[in-house]
Amino acid sequence: MKIPSGFKASALSCGIKKRGKLDLALIFSEVPARAAGVFTNNKLPAAPVKVAKEHLKKSNTVQAIIANSGNANSFTGNGGVEDAKKEALYLSKVLGIKAEAVLVASTGIIGKRLELEKIKNAVPSLVRNLSKNGIAKAARAIMTTDTFAKISSNEFSAGGGRVVITGMTKGAGMIAPDMATMLCFIMTDANITQRALRSALKEAVDKSFNCITVDGCMSTNDTVLILANGRAANFLIDAGSKACEKFSDALSAVCLNLAKMMVKDAEGISKFIEIEVKGARNDAQAKRAALAIANSNLFKTALYGENPNWGRVVAAIGASGIDVLEGSLKIRFSSLAKKDIFVDVNLNIGKGRAVVYTSDLTPEYIKINAEYN
Amino acid sequence: MKIPSGFKASALSCGIKKRGKLDLALIFSEVPARAAGVFTNNKLPAAPVKVAKEHLKKSNTVQAIIANSGNANSFTGNGGVEDAKKEALYLSKVLGIKAEAVLVASTGIIGKRLELEKIKNAVPSLVRNLSKNGIAKAARAIMTTDTFAKISSNEFSAGGGRVVITGMTKGAGMIAPDMATMLCFIMTDANITQRALRSALKEAVDKSFNCITVDGCMSTNDTVLILANGRAANFLIDAGSKACEKFSDALSAVCLNLAKMMVKDAEGISKFIEIEVKGARNDAQAKRAALAIANSNLFKTALYGENPNWGRVVAAIGASGIDVLEGSLKIRFSSLAKKDIFVDVNLNIGKGRAVVYTSDLTPEYIKINAEYN
Repeated sequence: MKIPSGFKASALSCGIKKRGKLDLALIFSEVPARAAGVFTNNKLPAAPVKVAKEHLKKSNTVQAIIANSGNANSFTGNGGVEDAKKEALYLSKVLGIKAEAVLVASTGIIGKRLELEKIKNAVPSLVRNLSKNGIAKAARAIMTTDTFAKISSNEFSAGGGRVVITGMTKGAGMIAPDMATMLCFIMTDANITQRALRSALKEAVDKSFNCITVDGCMSTNDTVLILANGRAANFLIDAGSKACEKFSDALSAVCLNLAKMMVKDAEGISKFIEIEVKGARNDAQAKRAALAIANSNLFKTALYGENPNWGRVVAAIGASGIDVLEGSLKIRFSSLAKKDIFVDVNLNIGKGRAVVYTSDLTPEYIKINAEYN
Repeated sequence: MKIPSGFKASALSCGIKKRGKLDLALIFSEVPARAAGVFTNNKLPAAPVKVAKEHLKKSNTVQAIIANSGNANSFTGNGGVEDAKKEALYLSKVLGIKAEAVLVASTGIIGKRLELEKIKNAVPSLVRNLSKNGIAKAARAIMTTDTFAKISSNEFSAGGGRVVITGMTKGAGMIAPDMATMLCFIMTDANITQRALRSALKEAVDKSFNCITVDGCMSTNDTVLILANGRAANFLIDAGSKACEKFSDALSAVCLNLAKMMVKDAEGISKFIEIEVKGARNDAQAKRAALAIANSNLFKTALYGENPNWGRVVAAIGASGIDVLEGSLKIRFSSLAKKDIFVDVNLNIGKGRAVVYTSDLTPEYIKINAEYN
């Protein structure tokens, strides 16, 4: 794994999770970094989402991300917001930076206050242990029902320098609201303007995390953050440039890799399903149809049963409300006996196209989610 | 069971389904009846839906409904539409009425042409066997994965007469597109204007079938039909009258009974769940929130596990996009050990209220839908 210049991380067990499991991670840039974030649209966002948004607004640069698993600090009221602020403040003092340069993220149970003392007690050792090698460990510390850590790297040359982008994500379901919350932290040493960073992140998220679905459930904590510390030797990348296009493509590739890993680790998965819808009126209609298929319990259950029930695809497309002509619609399944399945849909009425990734719906998904407390 | 005056029915096995199972039903009014229908919003409606809509437009009165199970005659192109028209035409000749006075409905597999000869051959005997007692048999003949027949009756006095309303429905999932399609046929002897009939049906459907969900999937065949033959001795009921209000209430009660029966027979159900959302900005927002909870796989799975995971209710409400304040939201579950469960949500910001009925999501649902072909 490539690691962008000037980034370190560490992780440990502070006692939020039981049995000494890793539950606290710190990502740190040696120099102030430009930052951008994309957050859940949920109308009841968790406290760390509110605080991270506020800090991104207040501060031009960010130097640290602290994230815990085991407790989402969601639906915890003003007290929860205070907790997230105190966490950032305390870490900022130990690091010797301002509080707004710290972003916070949480994932786990909804409706339980953070055990702040446990986090405070762990911060000094978290800072002491910062290292390049800590990045892999940090990716493990943010896991909940994930069965493997998810890291992806990419690099490219532009503006006279070599730029590295490395991201980590967690989420074993898109999204299991009280546990599997999607978190993604991306580090890059690119020297890039705020404007370019923000638009590249938005585009990458649209092309990746917004193209996957496991159960159609939206979390209160979903957070994607990127820090760009400018330590690569490239010239400043601005929006609209050739270099910016390269950055955007490389970032999208990292995010898509991470997004696919999330689906491959989906709760109870037995089939990884790629759904391509083409020939739609436009790209937005293609995506709406693809997501409608991907979120149909009947379709997902049929694929679990290796049952080529394309009638369920017809019904889902019709229910999605997009423009469709019965006589033009073509549906094709690859062999259902395999683990990776492709579903090709051609509406044959326009040039719109979208690809969406999902998993099947299995008894194991129900078992995992019926038992989780 | 009360049966409205002047209605008969019959049912038999014509060979669409295997092993001699009932698969063809006829409902007949001795005199021409006013009729109204509510149909699926699916953009790929099945052939019988198209033909029933056309006949309702062309004709002021209806005298017969013919419905088959085992084949949805959906996604069958122009040929499928011709089949449905021929079916109506053939039956109309045997009954000695015009073709437009026959409505057709189908449920079952998507994408397979009807075996029209089997239906034609069965029509004479279907007509010969018409009787009051045939109504219970007809309710069985429209079943697919249903485990029991669903009939409900109601009566009231108005305008100098006693009016009876009797409905039958099928659907063991709301809605399993290629099989469980919701069909509902309602007979009444009320003497009622077209306008009043239509608005009462729309209101009843909104308060009943549009308040239940099993898997959030919309069928290509959903059809609700009502025939009012005026054989009761009441005066003509017009929209806006006190009698119309009584009719509307009685019809809504029949539909709600049938809707609850559908949920109780939901595929794989182990819990019958009533979700009440109150204190919303308005009724529409309350219903949106209630349906969002009811369609959350994570919520449904938690209840299957008897796991009072209200964090999933929080996440679903937030994801629904309605107005909500974290500090005002109250959620209460009844005992999860029982089969009937109540979930009370109070948003505490307005007077909007809605009640929605759903089932839990179980391994049995997956088994049924993974194996169905």
